[in-house]
Amino acid sequence: MSKVLSGMRPTGRLHLGHYFGVLMNWVKFQNECECYYMSADWHVLTTSYVDTSAVNENTLEMVADWITAGVDPEKSVFFKQSGVLYHSELFLILSMITPLSWLQRCPTYKEQISQIKNKDLSNYGFLGYPILMSADILLYKANIVPIGEDQLSHLELTRKIARRFNNFYGDTFIEPKEELTKAASVPGLDGRKMSKSYGNSILLGESDDILRDKVKSMFTDPLKIKTADPGHPCGCVVFAFHEIFGIEYKNREEECKAGAIGCMSCKKQLMEMLSEFMKPLTEKRKDLIADKAYLEKIVEAGCRKAAEIAQQTMEEIRKAMKF
Amino acid sequence: MSKVLSGMRPTGRLHLGHYFGVLMNWVKFQNECECYYMSADWHVLTTSYVDTSAVNENTLEMVADWITAGVDPEKSVFFKQSGVLYHSELFLILSMITPLSWLQRCPTYKEQISQIKNKDLSNYGFLGYPILMSADILLYKANIVPIGEDQLSHLELTRKIARRFNNFYGDTFIEPKEELTKAASVPGLDGRKMSKSYGNSILLGESDDILRDKVKSMFTDPLKIKTADPGHPCGCVVFAFHEIFGIEYKNREEECKAGAIGCMSCKKQLMEMLSEFMKPLTEKRKDLIADKAYLEKIVEAGCRKAAEIAQQTMEEIRKAMKF
Repeated sequence: MSKVLSGMRPTGRLHLGHYFGVLMNWVKFQNECECYYMSADWHVLTTSYVDTSAVNENTLEMVADWITAGVDPEKSVFFKQSGVLYHSELFLILSMITPLSWLQRCPTYKEQISQIKNKDLSNYGFLGYPILMSADILLYKANIVPIGEDQLSHLELTRKIARRFNNFYGDTFIEPKEELTKAASVPGLDGRKMSKSYGNSILLGESDDILRDKVKSMFTDPLKIKTADPGHPCGCVVFAFHEIFGIEYKNREEECKAGAIGCMSCKKQLMEMLSEFMKPLTEKRKDLIADKAYLEKIVEAGCRKAAEIAQQTMEEIRKAMKF
Repeated sequence: MSKVLSGMRPTGRLHLGHYFGVLMNWVKFQNECECYYMSADWHVLTTSYVDTSAVNENTLEMVADWITAGVDPEKSVFFKQSGVLYHSELFLILSMITPLSWLQRCPTYKEQISQIKNKDLSNYGFLGYPILMSADILLYKANIVPIGEDQLSHLELTRKIARRFNNFYGDTFIEPKEELTKAASVPGLDGRKMSKSYGNSILLGESDDILRDKVKSMFTDPLKIKTADPGHPCGCVVFAFHEIFGIEYKNREEECKAGAIGCMSCKKQLMEMLSEFMKPLTEKRKDLIADKAYLEKIVEAGCRKAAEIAQQTMEEIRKAMKF
């Protein structure tokens, strides 16, 4: 059976972009593969080390979101990175065989250093972050890693490090393959990519009141002012959501283009669909969040299971290196 | 009681330079302080990662040398770094808060990169080696670290990292102080510093035959050819050893200067003194090496003790970071 390793940084609540872009994939994998889903809490430190007070709480919130979306802790292993010390051991070992230049040449490294200005990225750990990611993957001998296109260079690095290790110490690691997740089809309220940092997202478990405000604020076709004006659904955020949620979106496209419906009515219908979609999620999430002890138990049990596998791999690694 | 952390890389057998320069200090500390003596096996990887097959065996040989020199595993904790996973956990965490520039500016880093040409030092782990050393020290809250002058900048870095951590997450670490070990007074056979890489060393547990050959090959005053020629003891390797081993070395100085003794007789006497000094060490070492299981047990028990202390510190660290 194929093994999947995937993870998210516990930095806050998840939104519909995560839901459709990542979690639906995880749900699909859990029925076909052996899945390890990780809260990458040590990774948070690479860019946010000054205040770490919310990281642990965020892991629990995130796990609640995973379960809300239908990812099943009975089928997959949910764990946090810092709960399995072997990640740090393998990070240290791989650090020794990874040329600095491989890290310095990483396109994501250069890009983030030049683009992210409000955080200190000049620390040693941030440069080494792709090694930690490699350790995460190789530790479980995952052969499938679902990633976005921006992470491709990191997975290429993981394969290079695996080959280098195998070359020095004998065949130990398998080379993981990416499963490219399509760019999320869910736009943010303003039409850009849905992202917490843009403030344009709809959270999992959002209440009806907030949903209503957010739908109201959605960008629509600026050329359609009166109901009778012909609209341009392509590029309209409200229409994009109809496409995702509505069964009748083809009709809606015609109506909009023909000026047979106004944006207000269109939004009202979307609000109803969104509300219906969100309601069971919101309730499920509320119950989960009310029982933190249950979430903690899931993470603890997951860490134990993950550690068993990780330990087996570490024993092979130590044996290969004669340590 | 003061806590001492010191370590050596397990790269081969120890010689008289280690004996007088380091191990005599360790013996002194073990009666006054709580001592942690570490085989820095992960550190070996920073410069020699391609062939690691001898590292584990070298740890046992080294521990035999420590005991031979009088360092007592009943009084001090002997352990190997890779046997206490918390070293890697703390390395990872400190990696996140250590600016790259602190490492790049390390005088030892720049020096070694420019001087060591026969090894690949361009790996990520070599750059981060002072962070690993900091983790080694801070994990035991050692307040005394015996080091040579060349390591001073690393200890300064350790203090800076400790302050930075305390500043972000609250007082957790103490700042360790160096105990400077004097430059070894034992010259190598050729008059340079005794060092394995120069091929000029006398090993602990050297046999009489080899001792004899090595004493014969020692450099003496090139101006003293015949017995009656007046010699210059200062700078003569044989005389330096008389100074270390002989009680009557002041007389010898006079005799040599006066041309009252020849170099051959002088060497013969040194050989006798060296042989007498070495005999009990050689026997002790032979017994130790014959019982690898005993050495392994010492290291295992030491790792357990060290891990207990390290775990306590890690719990404080995780609590401080709310992880």
